[in-house]
Amino acid sequence: MNDIKTVGLLGGGVIGAGWAARCLLNGLDVVVCDLDPEAERKLGEVIANAGRAMGKISMAPPGPRGSLRITREIEDAAGGADFIQESLPEREDIKIPLLKRAAKAARPEVIIGSSTSGLLPSRLQAGIAHPERFLVGHPFNPVYLMPLVEVCGGDMTTAEVKDRAAAFYAALGMRPLMLRKEIDGFIADRLMEALWRESLWLVKDDIATAEEIDDALRFGPGLRWSFMGSFLTYRIAGGEAGMRHFMEQFGPSLKWPWTKLMDVPDLDDALLDKIVSQSDDQAGGRTIRDWERLRDDCLVSVMQGLSGHDFGAGTVLKDYGKVLFECAHETAKSAAHDPSAPLRLHTARVLPEWIDYNGHMTESRYLQVFGDGTDAVLRHIGADAEYHKHGFSYYTVETHIRHLHDVNADTPLQVETQILGADDKRLHIFHSLVAAESGTLLASAEHMLLHVDTKEGRACPAAREVLAKLEPIAEGHAKLPPPEGAGRAIAMPGPKV
Amino acid sequence: MNDIKTVGLLGGGVIGAGWAARCLLNGLDVVVCDLDPEAERKLGEVIANAGRAMGKISMAPPGPRGSLRITREIEDAAGGADFIQESLPEREDIKIPLLKRAAKAARPEVIIGSSTSGLLPSRLQAGIAHPERFLVGHPFNPVYLMPLVEVCGGDMTTAEVKDRAAAFYAALGMRPLMLRKEIDGFIADRLMEALWRESLWLVKDDIATAEEIDDALRFGPGLRWSFMGSFLTYRIAGGEAGMRHFMEQFGPSLKWPWTKLMDVPDLDDALLDKIVSQSDDQAGGRTIRDWERLRDDCLVSVMQGLSGHDFGAGTVLKDYGKVLFECAHETAKSAAHDPSAPLRLHTARVLPEWIDYNGHMTESRYLQVFGDGTDAVLRHIGADAEYHKHGFSYYTVETHIRHLHDVNADTPLQVETQILGADDKRLHIFHSLVAAESGTLLASAEHMLLHVDTKEGRACPAAREVLAKLEPIAEGHAKLPPPEGAGRAIAMPGPKV
Repeated sequence: MNDIKTVGLLGGGVIGAGWAARCLLNGLDVVVCDLDPEAERKLGEVIANAGRAMGKISMAPPGPRGSLRITREIEDAAGGADFIQESLPEREDIKIPLLKRAAKAARPEVIIGSSTSGLLPSRLQAGIAHPERFLVGHPFNPVYLMPLVEVCGGDMTTAEVKDRAAAFYAALGMRPLMLRKEIDGFIADRLMEALWRESLWLVKDDIATAEEIDDALRFGPGLRWSFMGSFLTYRIAGGEAGMRHFMEQFGPSLKWPWTKLMDVPDLDDALLDKIVSQSDDQAGGRTIRDWERLRDDCLVSVMQGLSGHDFGAGTVLKDYGKVLFECAHETAKSAAHDPSAPLRLHTARVLPEWIDYNGHMTESRYLQVFGDGTDAVLRHIGADAEYHKHGFSYYTVETHIRHLHDVNADTPLQVETQILGADDKRLHIFHSLVAAESGTLLASAEHMLLHVDTKEGRACPAAREVLAKLEPIAEGHAKLPPPEGAGRAIAMPGPKV
Repeated sequence: MNDIKTVGLLGGGVIGAGWAARCLLNGLDVVVCDLDPEAERKLGEVIANAGRAMGKISMAPPGPRGSLRITREIEDAAGGADFIQESLPEREDIKIPLLKRAAKAARPEVIIGSSTSGLLPSRLQAGIAHPERFLVGHPFNPVYLMPLVEVCGGDMTTAEVKDRAAAFYAALGMRPLMLRKEIDGFIADRLMEALWRESLWLVKDDIATAEEIDDALRFGPGLRWSFMGSFLTYRIAGGEAGMRHFMEQFGPSLKWPWTKLMDVPDLDDALLDKIVSQSDDQAGGRTIRDWERLRDDCLVSVMQGLSGHDFGAGTVLKDYGKVLFECAHETAKSAAHDPSAPLRLHTARVLPEWIDYNGHMTESRYLQVFGDGTDAVLRHIGADAEYHKHGFSYYTVETHIRHLHDVNADTPLQVETQILGADDKRLHIFHSLVAAESGTLLASAEHMLLHVDTKEGRACPAAREVLAKLEPIAEGHAKLPPPEGAGRAIAMPGPKV
């Protein structure tokens, strides 16, 4: 997406604002067209939520944000854009005339994606200028966190446009799903709709309340669906006998009266009132913003949990995190370092799950931040992933930590590192953990590392290139005063009991 | 469930074996009736999987397992049981006669739960002895991990039986959902079935493959459904305007052709072949056991992720973990300690996500285990959660770690602690991290802790009761030789570069 710098967004509602947040946090400039006089406040709230969630989703330090501008003219949003995403109300009579105006104002090669969850691209693209660059890119709420985007072209959309759009969405950290055929509701919404229609029947017939139906999902099949769909789940449920056995065993139940989906419930006032009142009970007085933050926190944790297994949405997150880290690493590498100043290679932010019952950062998280700081130093001198592949690494053999000040949630942290000593096998370093904003020294960690041949499992001299990078820094740092607290042992000062 | 010691399981297939594993790991004795000559091997494999997953799900040390016996006689499984759970094939002509035999053999007050996913309890209980103690307790695969169990009584089931059964399932770490009405497929399976029928149409009509449909779910709505059902998700999607607005906005689309559920696809040979072949492609040659382990790992991580937010399945897990910890804590408290021997209060097992790119335990995880060891010592001397509530705590101010041997995945670990010194404000301790099986010393951690008034944020003397527990141990430990490596500072031994 190197050629895309500015994104034109048509509509700044829940979905449009989600796109704005995702684009801004990926460094793109955004022009949003929205007529709502409160657009600026609403966009600002969604972007703040997104910044909060994205700050947690990867340990990579955030890159620079893009700029945001709000306009009331479709042509203003579309004219200078390198990619256009439309998220207007779900009515052809609104979307089509505005899409025509946008297409007329846009450069002919600029892709126009529509966020519609159900309208057909062939109907939306008919009559716009250069219809071959129009397609549906259907996202899910919250757009700044949910990976899925369904890519569906119309009769006139070219394959090249679909591929370019998919590459753009992927670069934003999303997971494009390419549709083979144009169909009402695409795929995910058809699945959601089937489940939703059954849910409405259950409420209408007083079989269960909204909350009970939600519980049946989230304590049960919904847990599995966060990483495996029905087909794979059922395959596994078939046990050793596999999918054919499962289908044969459970096939007959397709004929059982297990859904009422042969019919659609009438959304009359009585049913509407019942649903609204049950939904109010379920929400229990929490505000929408509270629920949004809880939803985002859960989404982040679920995806981070899956990332450890490199599966499903976890893989999307992991790959995206790698890209972010590479960007940050390139920035760090290219930054000129004064060899006589401490290294400043790692920043972090205290996540809510790092906080213990005392309200402070858990002990082990200190060492996590220091360990990441050590990794940054090692990458800096060339002892990186590539070096590990060749069977060499530095192992920490000894650590001394001092806790000097409490660290609370959301504190931005900076690790500063002084090399205290180095020879061909040893590396003696001292990290200072500093509150990035106030400069307060929060904790320190002194480490002794040993260079090892990982296959042989014993110490060996580091590669010449690594030592060549390390030595000038070690020499520069030798001129710095030794940090307070270095070389300390733990001892009881007073008389013992 | 204090009155339940032995569980009789009718059927030892995928679901029955899952019940066996959940019961055994919760310390209950299990008698399984199954005619499969391979029952023992199959049960053993599921129990091994369950032990592996449950070992990861809580940091609480596992309690003693129950005993397992396999029988070919229904009466043998039912006769001595304090609770009976039936997981036989989903056919009334199989279930009803065997349930009759089991009910005749069982004591009259013993509850009989059926795992049926669709048969009606009123039909299953008619004609059994003491039908009022029969109900459906419908679990989800894998039974040893999935929290949901749908509790549904028949016409003759008493409310007291439903409550007792729900309490039993909850004590096993599950989340009972009490059904208001008897209905085919209960709730969760109706939702699953609706989604499944739509999925079968999509495959039949070549709109998407099994893998694409699964992807549409797991990268999209499935992620949200792991913690919020449709009702709450849609409420939030409605933004500030809430549920009525959402329903009014999206209500009309209920009339759009977004599912084909007015009809059911014929599961003919052509469709069956297509599904089986697409499922094979998707599974990509991995074995069912591999898939089961990946599924379990993902489930554990998702639930652990949610546990940090105390929401959905995370709350179930958190509450269950608390109970497990209390049990372990009671065991530790009641264990007689020789005051002149090191404390052995904490064990742990190395989880796969604790392993770094070198294949060894990540640095910060050492401090996590040591920190948990410190917490165990503090609980042991009465500086526990209750004590924190009164505004007092011990904070770690200094830590010295030595890494002596690599620690690999799945290694069982034991922390041994020697008190090196203590006064009314200070506690100086030394942990040895030992491989539980070989006794090898893997790492050590020396800590200085300070007793603090958490509201004032400054050091203060510990409570008399705490010191009274601490002093005899400190005096006993003062007679032990100082551990090797205590009081050490970090220093470069050789000449510097």
